[in-house]
Amino acid sequence: MAKNYHVAVVGATGAVGTQMIELLEQVTSFEIGKVSFLSSARSAGKKKTFRGEEITIEEAKPESFSGVDIALFSAGGSVSKALAKEAVQRGAIVIDNTSAFRMDPTVPLVVPEVNEEALKRHAGIIANPNCSTIQMVAALEPIREKFGLNRIIVSTYQAVSGSGISAIQELKDQSRAILDGEDFTPEYLPVKGDKKHYQIAFNALPQIDVFTDNDYTYEEMKMINETRKIMEDDTMKVAATCVRIPVVTGHSESVYIEVEEAGVSAQAIQEALKNAPGIVLEDDPANQIYPQAALSENKKEVFVGRVRHDLDDPKGFHMWIVSDNLLKGAAWNSIQIAESLVKLEII
Amino acid sequence: MAKNYHVAVVGATGAVGTQMIELLEQVTSFEIGKVSFLSSARSAGKKKTFRGEEITIEEAKPESFSGVDIALFSAGGSVSKALAKEAVQRGAIVIDNTSAFRMDPTVPLVVPEVNEEALKRHAGIIANPNCSTIQMVAALEPIREKFGLNRIIVSTYQAVSGSGISAIQELKDQSRAILDGEDFTPEYLPVKGDKKHYQIAFNALPQIDVFTDNDYTYEEMKMINETRKIMEDDTMKVAATCVRIPVVTGHSESVYIEVEEAGVSAQAIQEALKNAPGIVLEDDPANQIYPQAALSENKKEVFVGRVRHDLDDPKGFHMWIVSDNLLKGAAWNSIQIAESLVKLEII
Repeated sequence: MAKNYHVAVVGATGAVGTQMIELLEQVTSFEIGKVSFLSSARSAGKKKTFRGEEITIEEAKPESFSGVDIALFSAGGSVSKALAKEAVQRGAIVIDNTSAFRMDPTVPLVVPEVNEEALKRHAGIIANPNCSTIQMVAALEPIREKFGLNRIIVSTYQAVSGSGISAIQELKDQSRAILDGEDFTPEYLPVKGDKKHYQIAFNALPQIDVFTDNDYTYEEMKMINETRKIMEDDTMKVAATCVRIPVVTGHSESVYIEVEEAGVSAQAIQEALKNAPGIVLEDDPANQIYPQAALSENKKEVFVGRVRHDLDDPKGFHMWIVSDNLLKGAAWNSIQIAESLVKLEII
Repeated sequence: MAKNYHVAVVGATGAVGTQMIELLEQVTSFEIGKVSFLSSARSAGKKKTFRGEEITIEEAKPESFSGVDIALFSAGGSVSKALAKEAVQRGAIVIDNTSAFRMDPTVPLVVPEVNEEALKRHAGIIANPNCSTIQMVAALEPIREKFGLNRIIVSTYQAVSGSGISAIQELKDQSRAILDGEDFTPEYLPVKGDKKHYQIAFNALPQIDVFTDNDYTYEEMKMINETRKIMEDDTMKVAATCVRIPVVTGHSESVYIEVEEAGVSAQAIQEALKNAPGIVLEDDPANQIYPQAALSENKKEVFVGRVRHDLDDPKGFHMWIVSDNLLKGAAWNSIQIAESLVKLEII
């Protein structure tokens, strides 16, 4: 008889947690016997419906994880640092959507289409990569597998929902204020905890997360380091410029790559993408077909288009990669990890 | 006695033409004795004020250019093709802001800070480069001059005003419709004359101008070809991905470059920019200082920030370049060309 899993969602009222719950309702690849929806003390007591049943949200505490098989964390790095190990000690496997453990060498960092096998090396915690990393490596892995990959230079066009529900509201309120010619005070973006806040509506902000000592942002360093870890190639050249734009949901990325093999055509790259799991090739310039953030919303796939040869470097290619940052970039990738754990009989 | 120039503006009611007229009002480096504001038959008869005087807009015809010394064209490529040579035949020097003559080898393509001397080779028509090209070459020339430049890879974040007044209105109307949960029909962007039109509000469209046979857009090919022409280096590697985002005015660019010289530091790049004409270095990550489209509006300078070394390539650097696409990207560069023509005693 198949096992009935007890699944906990930590951060159940957040932008990603809400998506996790909706996706869990649709899971058919394993049985869910029980769910626990956990949050901060502030949101505890609120209710959410799950498969027709009303579930009361509880405050996340160490003892909340007794009996939990799979704990999906998406409540910020500090919550994960405080509670993930408590959950593991109580027998759960943690799938953590924060950056708390991503670069820990004992923690697999997994995009199932890319490195599902890494799950077998887990020691309790599995990390879900950063949203902007996930969609990029999902699209580039089929290319790397066939032709090798030496270099990535990415510029991102990231949606505000990556910063949470308050950032979405700020974009909407600010947009309306500007259209109405009214004053407004930026309070949240680019980074809630940083010193200064700037207009995001009708603007582009080249800062996501705070700056590190080398003048790159943490978001940029996440893309660089996580890509190398997931692709298991410490020498791959990766560069990133991460930019927030006034889009609600759907990250877009302008990506330049250099492959290892000589003589590869843009058509061969497109063929590799066409047959790749989780990838949809939308690439027909003559008919103006290319991926768009607004069209990616509520879809689980990663969309790739504008694939073309660099005009100078025979091993260079450009492309445009788009995905729903709350789904494949966060909640859906976490659920896929849970599905892989069951499929590989790790849990 | 200094000459009194007769200046004509063709496209006087457009987004760029309007800016040209405002900038002409402020010109002090040469005397303007007379202005002619020209447009299509449809807009003829409207009035504009110039230095306190009411000027009636006239339909642009060959004979409109009799007595004109400087004719500023910004009414679309077809108007320039029909009338620029007529103006030259009547003794005017044409400064053309369309793409009609940019790649003509007899036409200088000029950003005064970069290649003012090319004006001396004019044969009646001088071309103003594409907006996205101007700000990039203005920022990169001081670097090329000091350290050499082998390669440019740019991803743009372009404002809708580059597509004219109707595109601005479309972004505003669509934004409001989406905020109000109302339906809307895209009618203009990404390209008025193309087959399909897409949502621009809260979206990113990787298409500016129509596609060419090599799957690049004309906008991308403009950036590539114009950069080589202005920098007079046919072998420079240039690649571009051009993207329209929901910003009214102010183009942003994520630019990767490789310099020729070894041992160059990010600080040396910043120093070169700090002292360059028309450039403002806004680069202090610790204090969250970087260029922003919304802050560039109505300013004539090109703003550069986020200058940092590539983490893998010792000759590689990344930066973020922002400018008002209607001013330095169009109207202001044209006025600067007129000022240079007078200064160099070409006219």
